[in-house]
Amino acid sequence: MAYDLIIIGGGPAGVTAGIYSARKKLNTLLITTGFGGQMTKKTVTVENYPGFEEVSGLDLIGRFEKQLRKQKIEILTEEVTKLEKNNEIFWVLTKNNKKFEAKTVLITSGSEPKPLDVPGEKEFIGRGVSYCVNCDGPLFSGKTVAVVGGGNAGLEAALFLLNYARKIYILEYEEKLGADQTNQERAKQNKKIEIITGITLKEIKGKKFVEQIFYQDKKNGREEVLPVDGVFVEIGWRPATTFLKELVALNEKGEIIIDPQTCQTKTPGVFAAGDVTAGKHKQIIIACGQGARAALAIYDYLEKK
Amino acid sequence: MAYDLIIIGGGPAGVTAGIYSARKKLNTLLITTGFGGQMTKKTVTVENYPGFEEVSGLDLIGRFEKQLRKQKIEILTEEVTKLEKNNEIFWVLTKNNKKFEAKTVLITSGSEPKPLDVPGEKEFIGRGVSYCVNCDGPLFSGKTVAVVGGGNAGLEAALFLLNYARKIYILEYEEKLGADQTNQERAKQNKKIEIITGITLKEIKGKKFVEQIFYQDKKNGREEVLPVDGVFVEIGWRPATTFLKELVALNEKGEIIIDPQTCQTKTPGVFAAGDVTAGKHKQIIIACGQGARAALAIYDYLEKK
Repeated sequence: MAYDLIIIGGGPAGVTAGIYSARKKLNTLLITTGFGGQMTKKTVTVENYPGFEEVSGLDLIGRFEKQLRKQKIEILTEEVTKLEKNNEIFWVLTKNNKKFEAKTVLITSGSEPKPLDVPGEKEFIGRGVSYCVNCDGPLFSGKTVAVVGGGNAGLEAALFLLNYARKIYILEYEEKLGADQTNQERAKQNKKIEIITGITLKEIKGKKFVEQIFYQDKKNGREEVLPVDGVFVEIGWRPATTFLKELVALNEKGEIIIDPQTCQTKTPGVFAAGDVTAGKHKQIIIACGQGARAALAIYDYLEKK
Repeated sequence: MAYDLIIIGGGPAGVTAGIYSARKKLNTLLITTGFGGQMTKKTVTVENYPGFEEVSGLDLIGRFEKQLRKQKIEILTEEVTKLEKNNEIFWVLTKNNKKFEAKTVLITSGSEPKPLDVPGEKEFIGRGVSYCVNCDGPLFSGKTVAVVGGGNAGLEAALFLLNYARKIYILEYEEKLGADQTNQERAKQNKKIEIITGITLKEIKGKKFVEQIFYQDKKNGREEVLPVDGVFVEIGWRPATTFLKELVALNEKGEIIIDPQTCQTKTPGVFAAGDVTAGKHKQIIIACGQGARAALAIYDYLEKK
């Protein structure tokens, strides 16, 4: 028999949707490779989730998962590889060739910041390397930081860091910054910001915490080093939508376009919530709110059918 | 000097926005008559806020408030009576004739379910009387309940309660139900649901918990009594928007219409979030998500100016 709902993903949006759909007595299956999504990668403290002054990402997702498992919901640890529509029913296929049927599907597969893919990056996550200026900016009071990425995200991160950091480098691979003129002008006017373009990042180094970032000047080939306490990576997002095919519409960033009130995609019965959807600000609490909204909208959708 | 932001209201949306705006270093004033909004009226346990398996509304808002007060933000306990626009600046006026100026305003003044205004209603809140079927429905497994209100909200509440309750009365003041035909048909088909129209509610009675609901038949004037364990009030919402005048557009329910991505109202610089805004589902986690979204959008708005 087809499930009422299959939720794909176990981050904040998926877990919240699971709690809500179970309480709505929808016959629900949640499929995820693991719980927490990006929260598991945040080793620094979460301070902006209401209800917890300070909590580690792992602690918080642990609580989410425990709360979900108290509900009447099926949970499967697996990777979804394909989503198909067959008349009024959706087929969800997994890596191990299992097939599940559902009347509705909620995609909360998340996204992740594009990594730099340089030595030292992974090692120093949570110890100087960050992908979230809103989360971690306040930790760098009086420090020197590098922001990698000269688009709007990078420049806005740098301008925000002016509130905290003593000195900010903006590093960009291209010769020119991609950000809006206003952002560029504001960054260039500020003496605390130094913009370095046309470079290839080479390595992040340090002992316990980040201490240096190495790059190569593309024009003259010289290797340079900057002393920094932190590196903010702002070179874009990589939403997890490869399994989706043509059932949903994606924006230019590959994020799923939804109706913000109901979280429904262009295909009736297919919903999406959380970081995988189009939306500038990727935050735990925003994803949770969307998950709840989606589950209640899915309940309404099934009732109407 | 004008504040960057004045937040009006201290419920989940306002508090979350305050946490986010303070972390964004916006010079923020939050004005509220008290913290918690509807959460203070929920004496039963909250089980659908991710991170807490079970928490009282009062405990949760206590945590919210403590977390907010840790931030760099001004807080004023006062009632806002008027919001005006004067060129590019907003004036927020209070009951004690104070006037504050701000570049942006976020309205999170909430809404509350319309009460029945009958004896016993207030006394039994949290002891059988509920305004939130999503929150409290699961508590009535195997019980007999009355849903007051024959519109879509009432019928949807009754249909949802079929998952739990043994017997459900739907009580409606008018002769006919106002709900959609499909909802009406589904309710009428179910033997567990009994619909009683053309009645005036008189009183809710009980000892420790609700035991009876009294009503008068408008046609023959007879007083009747039903034995019930719970009363769900579903006669509409009363958003707190009286102080707002023409700066925002309201829907037919008096809720503020916003751009769901940015939470901005029809007036640039005026934002709204939480239960005061148009949106079917009033939930703590949804309000929190909107508060975060609004604060980040306000930051972007001020940066662009």
